[in-house]
Amino acid sequence: MPRKVTFDTRPPPGTVNFGVGQPSDDLLPVDLMREAASAFLSAAQPRQLNYGEREGDPLFRTALADFLGPEYRQAVAPDSLFLTAGNSQALDFVCSVFTRPGDTVIVEEPSYFLAFRIFEDHGLNIVSVPVDRDGMDIDSLESVLTRIKPSLVYTIPSFNNPAGISMSAGRRSRLADLSREHGFIVAADEVYQLLWFEQPPPPAMGTLIDQGNVLSLGSFSKILAPGLRLGWIQCGTALRERILDSGVVNSGGSFNHFTSLVVREVLASGSQQDLLEHLRASYAARAAAMQEALQEHVADLARWTRPGGGYFFWLELTSGRDTAALREKAPSYQVGFQPGVNFSCRGTLGHCMRLSFAHYGENDIRQGVARLDRLLRTG
Amino acid sequence: MPRKVTFDTRPPPGTVNFGVGQPSDDLLPVDLMREAASAFLSAAQPRQLNYGEREGDPLFRTALADFLGPEYRQAVAPDSLFLTAGNSQALDFVCSVFTRPGDTVIVEEPSYFLAFRIFEDHGLNIVSVPVDRDGMDIDSLESVLTRIKPSLVYTIPSFNNPAGISMSAGRRSRLADLSREHGFIVAADEVYQLLWFEQPPPPAMGTLIDQGNVLSLGSFSKILAPGLRLGWIQCGTALRERILDSGVVNSGGSFNHFTSLVVREVLASGSQQDLLEHLRASYAARAAAMQEALQEHVADLARWTRPGGGYFFWLELTSGRDTAALREKAPSYQVGFQPGVNFSCRGTLGHCMRLSFAHYGENDIRQGVARLDRLLRTG
Repeated sequence: MPRKVTFDTRPPPGTVNFGVGQPSDDLLPVDLMREAASAFLSAAQPRQLNYGEREGDPLFRTALADFLGPEYRQAVAPDSLFLTAGNSQALDFVCSVFTRPGDTVIVEEPSYFLAFRIFEDHGLNIVSVPVDRDGMDIDSLESVLTRIKPSLVYTIPSFNNPAGISMSAGRRSRLADLSREHGFIVAADEVYQLLWFEQPPPPAMGTLIDQGNVLSLGSFSKILAPGLRLGWIQCGTALRERILDSGVVNSGGSFNHFTSLVVREVLASGSQQDLLEHLRASYAARAAAMQEALQEHVADLARWTRPGGGYFFWLELTSGRDTAALREKAPSYQVGFQPGVNFSCRGTLGHCMRLSFAHYGENDIRQGVARLDRLLRTG
Repeated sequence: MPRKVTFDTRPPPGTVNFGVGQPSDDLLPVDLMREAASAFLSAAQPRQLNYGEREGDPLFRTALADFLGPEYRQAVAPDSLFLTAGNSQALDFVCSVFTRPGDTVIVEEPSYFLAFRIFEDHGLNIVSVPVDRDGMDIDSLESVLTRIKPSLVYTIPSFNNPAGISMSAGRRSRLADLSREHGFIVAADEVYQLLWFEQPPPPAMGTLIDQGNVLSLGSFSKILAPGLRLGWIQCGTALRERILDSGVVNSGGSFNHFTSLVVREVLASGSQQDLLEHLRASYAARAAAMQEALQEHVADLARWTRPGGGYFFWLELTSGRDTAALREKAPSYQVGFQPGVNFSCRGTLGHCMRLSFAHYGENDIRQGVARLDRLLRTG
């Protein structure tokens, strides 16, 4: 069973905590949200404050489809989109609809540590398959499938949290095929899909919803603002029917109706596209600063792959040193990170660490890496 | 197993569908929401768009506590409040945290039909105890408890949906005591608690959180706007710890952060209190119109208790006639209602019907009852 960990909260002033996987204040768009809320509420019909349609308001889903289509280079049908209250809610909901306690979920090694806790709450057995530079090792998955019949395969195909790598197009396609052959659901956590720096990752699993039992989970947390608690599940008709049959959906209607109608204005005005391009440039600069600083300071101590998008660097200490123990000493160096063991459902990866470059500007990143260097050498 | 039903959607124009348990357009406060969003977003800090604290933002919880305290005539501690994404989400979440498939939930007969579907999704066995004019029959509950050990007792203590009656103060207190003695959780659905007409119902179960294992579920759906998907769970420290330990809460933070900071402005400005008083007067007038029309038209065909708050009249046809069959004929009379059988987990109450007065003004209500009269006599 994985360690019980929560996300790092706002660090004390002066500390550079690369453990925080959240956007920095300067990337959070208050003006844009004010304009969108004003645009919606200056012309809103009262009925738009009532319960929304179970699958999400058509205006919102149409605007989202119009936004995703060009990004995915493939038309997205509004009816393939189901509104969620953010990706954590979506993942919890997917477990409620598609699993029963005692079922097995297959995850990547490493994978998002807080997803483990959601799976545990649903009484699922967690089994992992390794990741290499092309993402989830599908040969290993096939081998596991000869002895285990999972309900769910959970993957973060693009810019994996924490490993930063992306699954190849060929493997995505094989995964979709396997889901049909073996009767499992792919829950593809695609929150970093659009956050590429120089070139897009392979097409989202959302483009494969007709090829396999694929649920593509997207979110506005990484491209607009986490506090909105707004996201979507893209899927085909059969899975959509099972989702729409859920009791909680039929009781409460749309999972986050009001917020979705505000965000619809962000989408329809083109502001989301503008912000996304700004975020890509900003995160690319931060990733470059981190790459350069790591290269300068710790190239002899660690191995990593430079990420092409997302939020994270994943370092393997060549010494094999335990990063959880190191993390205990980090506060006195005014630096922080996520120990690798948190991302393993087997309790391995103890010599790794996840560094997020999303929460700090370039200067802080350089300073933080210098501190990390001192911690590694003297801590 | 109860019938699988969904809520009535927006009826065709010209029909008066008393089956719709939603506010009418004229009671949905677009101007108020516009002012609140503007107040929040004109002074918002960027970090307020980031993930919120798991239990909900302290500013919101404090404003909510300050609003509830005078209503409950008892101070409410902000730390006793946990933010939810509306009552349906809260009920689903409570099942996730406090039950396992195969457990038993005890409900009132009659009770909210869509709650049944949520319980079924969690694999719960549903057992009911009768309701009389003082609410849930606690003697019957005690008798059931001699042979069944439930995880959960679900009650709608004030202005029960559909029965419109309220549980007496003495029974509320006994229910809290029993939860301690028998080790079950009370999930008290208190969404109608504040919607009284002339005098308040007995104190909310939220005032008994120190006396028993009580979760008081509240919502802004009935006092502000359903589309906000915002509510709260009030509970004591021990239950709160179990809630905060949930995986989905630790992954996503506050369930509906952005919306809560808009609604905080509605609370802090006093607008919520003003609106609540307007809603009380409006619904009281509608309930009076329905009472009068029923008295005029169907007093010889049905029995009912005049509700002192909430959304609903609950009619028992003295003929014992099946209202589900009658419902099939209702569209040609341009009227609608919820058949009683939907509210029974035993498949009984077939001679009853629920009429909501929330979705129509007085004239429509009078016209709708006249049509109902014709349906009952000629349908």
